[in-house]
Amino acid sequence: METQGSYVALGLKVWKAQIERADKLFGGLSSQDVLREIAPGRNRLIYLWGHLTATHDAMLHLLKIGEPLHPEFDVAFISNPDKSQAAIPSHEQVRQAWNAIDGELWTGFEKMSWSDWLQRHTAVSEEDFAKDASRNRYAILLGRTNHLSYHLGQAGLAVK
Amino acid sequence: METQGSYVALGLKVWKAQIERADKLFGGLSSQDVLREIAPGRNRLIYLWGHLTATHDAMLHLLKIGEPLHPEFDVAFISNPDKSQAAIPSHEQVRQAWNAIDGELWTGFEKMSWSDWLQRHTAVSEEDFAKDASRNRYAILLGRTNHLSYHLGQAGLAVK
Repeated sequence: METQGSYVALGLKVWKAQIERADKLFGGLSSQDVLREIAPGRNRLIYLWGHLTATHDAMLHLLKIGEPLHPEFDVAFISNPDKSQAAIPSHEQVRQAWNAIDGELWTGFEKMSWSDWLQRHTAVSEEDFAKDASRNRYAILLGRTNHLSYHLGQAGLAVK
Repeated sequence: METQGSYVALGLKVWKAQIERADKLFGGLSSQDVLREIAPGRNRLIYLWGHLTATHDAMLHLLKIGEPLHPEFDVAFISNPDKSQAAIPSHEQVRQAWNAIDGELWTGFEKMSWSDWLQRHTAVSEEDFAKDASRNRYAILLGRTNHLSYHLGQAGLAVK
């Protein structure tokens, strides 16, 4: 029991460390700053922040914590590229959504036992999970943490 | 036993997926390509590749797998910024070192049992480890995987 808990605690520790980096990086930006591109012609900071927010929102359902808080972010920040939509959520809306979703996820994480993390996530069928038990909630945690790191590396280029 | 093995297998799976992304991204570059900057005035691709190679080389000792294969990469790619050294390892030397270190690490990973991953890494003393058992080898694996993702996000900007 104790050792399984260690792996889960480590996965959560790394998640939290990246979330704190993101809070620090995005949280300190002005409404002018967030319109900056990470490199000429590339995504703007607000798009990356919205993209991470929307990705984390989807985790609520994937991990059976709850339903997405902001499904409308999908059109603006996942299914379409930056600068393709006439209107996207404002800087303030992204900030509020990020904080709310992050809080909701963490509350959910704290309620999960180590064995919950090895259960299937909702995007895999029971049949497929029976064939490959690695498609579990812990895999989502590790994968999304790396997704966050990937975009943090990019966002850092626009703020240093 | 079985469940502890699941967490380790997942950590290794995510590591391997990022290594494969890196192989694909860096492996396909010409000696001209690697001199490209990820954004104007920022690190060149060869620096990022060398930096990841040197970071992974240090893992051999950290995880008690062996001694670094290319300690000389440190000066060129870790302790000094890009474009500050008169000479750095060539494109071919970075490629060979990357492949050799990656192979050595994987061979070492395969020999480790799930309980080995919860042992202390070599950068923490026995005394400090007794106070905080989360400073273990599995933490190094998760941390370095995220470090790799972070720089892959940046490198992708120069190749897309």
